[in-house]
Amino acid sequence: MIKSQLNDISYLIKNDLEAFNDLFRKSLKSQVFLVDLITKYLLKQKGKKIRPLLVILSAKLSGEVNERTYRGAILVELLHSATLVHDDVVDNADKRRGFPSINAIWKNKVAVLMGDYLLARGLMIAVDGKDFDFLGIVTDAVKRMSEGELLQINKTRKLDIDESTYFKIISDKTASLLSTCCEIGAVSSSQNPEYHKALKKFGEYLGIAFQIRDDILDYIGTSSVIGKPLGGDIKEKKITLPLLFSLKNAGQDESQKVLKMIKNGSKDGDVKKIIDFVKRNKGIDYSVETSIKYSALAKEQLSIFPESESRAALMALVDFITERRN
Amino acid sequence: MIKSQLNDISYLIKNDLEAFNDLFRKSLKSQVFLVDLITKYLLKQKGKKIRPLLVILSAKLSGEVNERTYRGAILVELLHSATLVHDDVVDNADKRRGFPSINAIWKNKVAVLMGDYLLARGLMIAVDGKDFDFLGIVTDAVKRMSEGELLQINKTRKLDIDESTYFKIISDKTASLLSTCCEIGAVSSSQNPEYHKALKKFGEYLGIAFQIRDDILDYIGTSSVIGKPLGGDIKEKKITLPLLFSLKNAGQDESQKVLKMIKNGSKDGDVKKIIDFVKRNKGIDYSVETSIKYSALAKEQLSIFPESESRAALMALVDFITERRN
Repeated sequence: MIKSQLNDISYLIKNDLEAFNDLFRKSLKSQVFLVDLITKYLLKQKGKKIRPLLVILSAKLSGEVNERTYRGAILVELLHSATLVHDDVVDNADKRRGFPSINAIWKNKVAVLMGDYLLARGLMIAVDGKDFDFLGIVTDAVKRMSEGELLQINKTRKLDIDESTYFKIISDKTASLLSTCCEIGAVSSSQNPEYHKALKKFGEYLGIAFQIRDDILDYIGTSSVIGKPLGGDIKEKKITLPLLFSLKNAGQDESQKVLKMIKNGSKDGDVKKIIDFVKRNKGIDYSVETSIKYSALAKEQLSIFPESESRAALMALVDFITERRN
Repeated sequence: MIKSQLNDISYLIKNDLEAFNDLFRKSLKSQVFLVDLITKYLLKQKGKKIRPLLVILSAKLSGEVNERTYRGAILVELLHSATLVHDDVVDNADKRRGFPSINAIWKNKVAVLMGDYLLARGLMIAVDGKDFDFLGIVTDAVKRMSEGELLQINKTRKLDIDESTYFKIISDKTASLLSTCCEIGAVSSSQNPEYHKALKKFGEYLGIAFQIRDDILDYIGTSSVIGKPLGGDIKEKKITLPLLFSLKNAGQDESQKVLKMIKNGSKDGDVKKIIDFVKRNKGIDYSVETSIKYSALAKEQLSIFPESESRAALMALVDFITERRN
């Protein structure tokens, strides 16, 4: 049902998405056989394409979709692909969207270079199109994404994190790119700085809600639905909002015990105990509430726009993202 | 003696290099503790700074060094640092300039993200300075660098390479960035397209000579001087110009035997045999000649400029690079 919600939204801009897909495929042609082979492999794995969707809907809401909108959508999708390829090296992951990851098939060497290639290719498209305004937005996002991840690693190693640091991390590592998508869409079709600002903020709040949802999904649902094992964050010693709240909410003795388990690299039995601890101490409830709060903030930003199909679609996208089960 | 040659060249633009170093250090400040820690660690490892040197000398030769020149020099040095950090992940290297590599100390995860961060930081400096002309030059270089390395991996795995592919690989993976340095320098200080073109070509030829020299150094010298073991390329099944020529020059039977050794992952005794084979069949001589040929082509490009200290310094830099022993 939720999946079909996304289909409905996509259907609204079906022609635009098709035009995007065509151009995206063309932009990935390379003279180097190995590069071509890997991009074809990546193209087979149809992701949810949420980022191009955000660019196109934001452009439609602010004005008319045009060539610049498509280039912006290609730029963010290439950037997103680059970070996924690098993330799989970073996390030593051997699967992505049900397919073996690039590093699993072609080794880390190729995956690192391929990520660099995709990033450069994306930036070149903006340079060639003289979309210099996109470049400032996008390079800031790349910087924030890597800084956010590095901050998380830093804090994870020390198991030392508070709520404001958590929000800094998720804003930088996740919200920055979604915010970029919406801002680029707006900038591509309108000169109105109010529109740019509203959609940039919309994307930022949406991104925060998105990442909180992601962090909740690590504690609920079944592994077959979300495609990754439950409690992955716990095993990696990543303290996210549900756990953070429960640690504060529970008695000090119990919290200390839980922290000790995490520190010692929780075994399977421990993971179950920690998930129970989080649920008992309202970590999930609090995180769901917080995610809904940010969704509402996101929607609020759209109030300056008159009612339209694209506004409704962006609102629906917020719901989709906050309620998704994978 | 050769080292002091480089010192002489650097001395000529001592003040410019100091201004560059100051700005470079400032550009690397970050709010994230781990990022700051690693950039400080990188700054301790003083490299040869050949790329900023090329930017500044090219600017001086074409006009006057200015703020844009410094930003260009920072951009290429950050880009170069990013690729070194990623290269060490790619090659699983645990040392760099005598220091443990980033991946050796902080693991691959951090090294991949840190490379992305440095790349984004460099691009942001150009964006903030509105040096949009730099961005086109630089993103093309990043694309060529990753494509060149991927082409090399592709060919290495199949042991299938000819001279024209070799030149394509080294142009893309090495010459592209040196060419970028010289072009950015020229663009920063002059509007004359003849100057831009000449210095771009100068950098390209210089880069080819530079990489051929690098590939020769894998066969000659002692490991203590070049800081990496002799025959590293052979062990990695990388067929470079010295070997390529000797394989063509020697009898078919012997060449087949050598290829077989490489294919089977040459042991230490094999490496010695292959180095002897290359020397006997004039692979080194031919590569030295070729490198000198490209050095001459590089110098030729400078003939459109009137005689000056910076022109002499760039000429000397060509000699330094073609004659260097590490």
